[in-house]
Amino acid sequence: INSKLPQVGTTIFTVMSKLAADNKAINLSQGFPGFDCYPYLQDLVSEYLRKGFNQYAPMSGVEDLKNRLAEKTKILYDIQLNAEEEITVVSGATEALYAAVTAVVRNGDEVILLEPAYDSYAPAVVLNGGVPVYVSLNLPDFSVDWGKVKAAITDKTRLIMVNTPHNPCGYVWTQEDLNTLAELIKDREIYVVSDEVYEHITFDGKKHLSLMTHSLLRERTFVCCSFGKTFHITGWKLGYCLAPKDLTSEFRKIHQFLTFSSCTPMQYALAEYMTEPSRYIYLNEFYQKKRDLFCEGLKNTPFKFTPAQGSFFQLVSYGHLSEESDYELAVRLTKEIGVASIPVSVFYHDQKDHKMLRFCFAKDEEVLEQALGLLSRPL
Amino acid sequence: INSKLPQVGTTIFTVMSKLAADNKAINLSQGFPGFDCYPYLQDLVSEYLRKGFNQYAPMSGVEDLKNRLAEKTKILYDIQLNAEEEITVVSGATEALYAAVTAVVRNGDEVILLEPAYDSYAPAVVLNGGVPVYVSLNLPDFSVDWGKVKAAITDKTRLIMVNTPHNPCGYVWTQEDLNTLAELIKDREIYVVSDEVYEHITFDGKKHLSLMTHSLLRERTFVCCSFGKTFHITGWKLGYCLAPKDLTSEFRKIHQFLTFSSCTPMQYALAEYMTEPSRYIYLNEFYQKKRDLFCEGLKNTPFKFTPAQGSFFQLVSYGHLSEESDYELAVRLTKEIGVASIPVSVFYHDQKDHKMLRFCFAKDEEVLEQALGLLSRPL
Ligand SMILES: CSCCC(=O)C(=O)O
Ligand SMILES: CSCCC(=O)C(=O)O
Repeated sequence: INSKLPQVGTTIFTVMSKLAADNKAINLSQGFPGFDCYPYLQDLVSEYLRKGFNQYAPMSGVEDLKNRLAEKTKILYDIQLNAEEEITVVSGATEALYAAVTAVVRNGDEVILLEPAYDSYAPAVVLNGGVPVYVSLNLPDFSVDWGKVKAAITDKTRLIMVNTPHNPCGYVWTQEDLNTLAELIKDREIYVVSDEVYEHITFDGKKHLSLMTHSLLRERTFVCCSFGKTFHITGWKLGYCLAPKDLTSEFRKIHQFLTFSSCTPMQYALAEYMTEPSRYIYLNEFYQKKRDLFCEGLKNTPFKFTPAQGSFFQLVSYGHLSEESDYELAVRLTKEIGVASIPVSVFYHDQKDHKMLRFCFAKDEEVLEQALGLLSRPL
Repeated sequence: INSKLPQVGTTIFTVMSKLAADNKAINLSQGFPGFDCYPYLQDLVSEYLRKGFNQYAPMSGVEDLKNRLAEKTKILYDIQLNAEEEITVVSGATEALYAAVTAVVRNGDEVILLEPAYDSYAPAVVLNGGVPVYVSLNLPDFSVDWGKVKAAITDKTRLIMVNTPHNPCGYVWTQEDLNTLAELIKDREIYVVSDEVYEHITFDGKKHLSLMTHSLLRERTFVCCSFGKTFHITGWKLGYCLAPKDLTSEFRKIHQFLTFSSCTPMQYALAEYMTEPSRYIYLNEFYQKKRDLFCEGLKNTPFKFTPAQGSFFQLVSYGHLSEESDYELAVRLTKEIGVASIPVSVFYHDQKDHKMLRFCFAKDEEVLEQALGLLSRPL
């Protein structure tokens, strides 16, 4: 069988997590919390399971959960969404991204991707017949090079995919970024898919600016979010998409045939859990402590770094120390030092190697301290 | 925004379930059990939730669950699958179908669909640039018209989608059907997606013949199955795909970017639950009682019917009684008599109306008896 994705092998997240397990290394590679969700949330799921909420949920999501998401959007951005027409619950942010891309991209359409980029974006584009057009983010701060984005736009450009807070770089979009993007697309039929799964994780007082907070962008954007990253339940595979009515209508047509609907008892449990906004508002503070601890400890290692502005990832550079490829170093650190990371080159279509590694600091303090101890040895 | 699926409106399953709820009618429309899953299975999920199995499962599924599925295949068909290379757990059979279609269909490929056909097949084909080629099943028995299938095959045919036991008709494929299909595709590069979500629900001693039981077909087929239909948990959205190594490898590349992985605690719970094969083997008997009860009662109604060979659906004809369209009648029966059904025309791309309705009999006996009482009135 002729592959439609010949370049795709086993995902780096599986490779590094397995290597970590095989070597009993501390796994700071794949992005998931090393701690559990709150027992009360688990209890709620058990309760809804037992109450018999085990058959199909409505295709677009359980009504109460959509209402809670509308409330959240009102609290965070003072924007009142119509829960019935602008919010769709899906089986994880990955599904949200795939469905949004599928809703707009046709054969031959060009899609601008800002690199480094999460690994599911390009395959989603390619599988829909689209052509990825890659624009590199600025180094060393990973801000957006708007001149390059402008130059990449053609009559065939149909979509631009953005990600704020950014994985793996931690860059958080500014108001100027939003304004510039809006200016660039306003006279063209270009849509936006905005991956905002780390919406609750920003640092040093930096505010997450959802693309939905910009009135022009809001009309063109599918905002893709994750319950998994917010409630420490990456394994439940639940996410959602916020988009204006006409985009949501097309999004749902795709979702209906991708997975139809998502896990019923867990949707009811999350709806009840989210009646208390403090259960998600606290996250900035929670993760700020971890980032601070991790960055403080990194000072005692041979790596160079700039603290992440958001997300639960920290990049480090080692080019001043070694000529090794980032993949080689990530493997060696896992095997020899006992700490697994992700080589940043995997986020570039041409595997461009900037001699950088990504560490996930969504772990308990003791685990981070132990990892930092190991990383403080000479490379 | 220009729709990629302009014909698609709100799915009939949503429309009829809502109409049933609004009219307090008995809902025999959308296909889901009217009873709950076993409390022990719910307890197992609660246990794994509490034990902290809440982060990403492996991309292709939890190892134990894949092993249990390999055992099931051995028990049912005496076929030993390689759990690591030939089995993938996904977020429902709908995802399995979409991913399988995406794995093989390219722009311009022709895909043969046997009508009436489940509503997700054609959109999956179209969204991948494929061209559906429709072949009608024989009336009145809904057997496959192999002459028509043969005539529909061209150099562009890349895939044929089959469904046994069949929704909505209840037809179960025979050994001759399998042999004939194998003969037709053996010298061409044609793949098969086989929707076998009702694999455990056949009647009157009729055996389900998975396409996997035919050695040539096995090499070309993605068998798509559902935990939801088998364990009365349609709301958990878990399914799986069985396919030979090379097809599974392509299937997983798609799954990885559609949803990445599926619900962790529920996968562990199902793995433990399935250690006891009697927990799925009993289903034929369980549903035979319901089908018998439903068909017995139908004799006292004005409808004509032939008992379903499999699935949990029963078709009835009313052309001898009324000129109404099947959609009109389904709506009228819901509103006036209080029983909701699905008009069969929705399963035809051109809405061909054979004056037939589909009833789901996966309901408690009292519910079926009540519905039959209501349906025994004159139309
Ligand atoms: C879906 S596994 C990868 C998780 C993640 O978001 C990451 O590590 O970047
Ligand atoms: C996914 S909702 C439809 C359920 C079903 O399989 C049917 O009613 O045919």
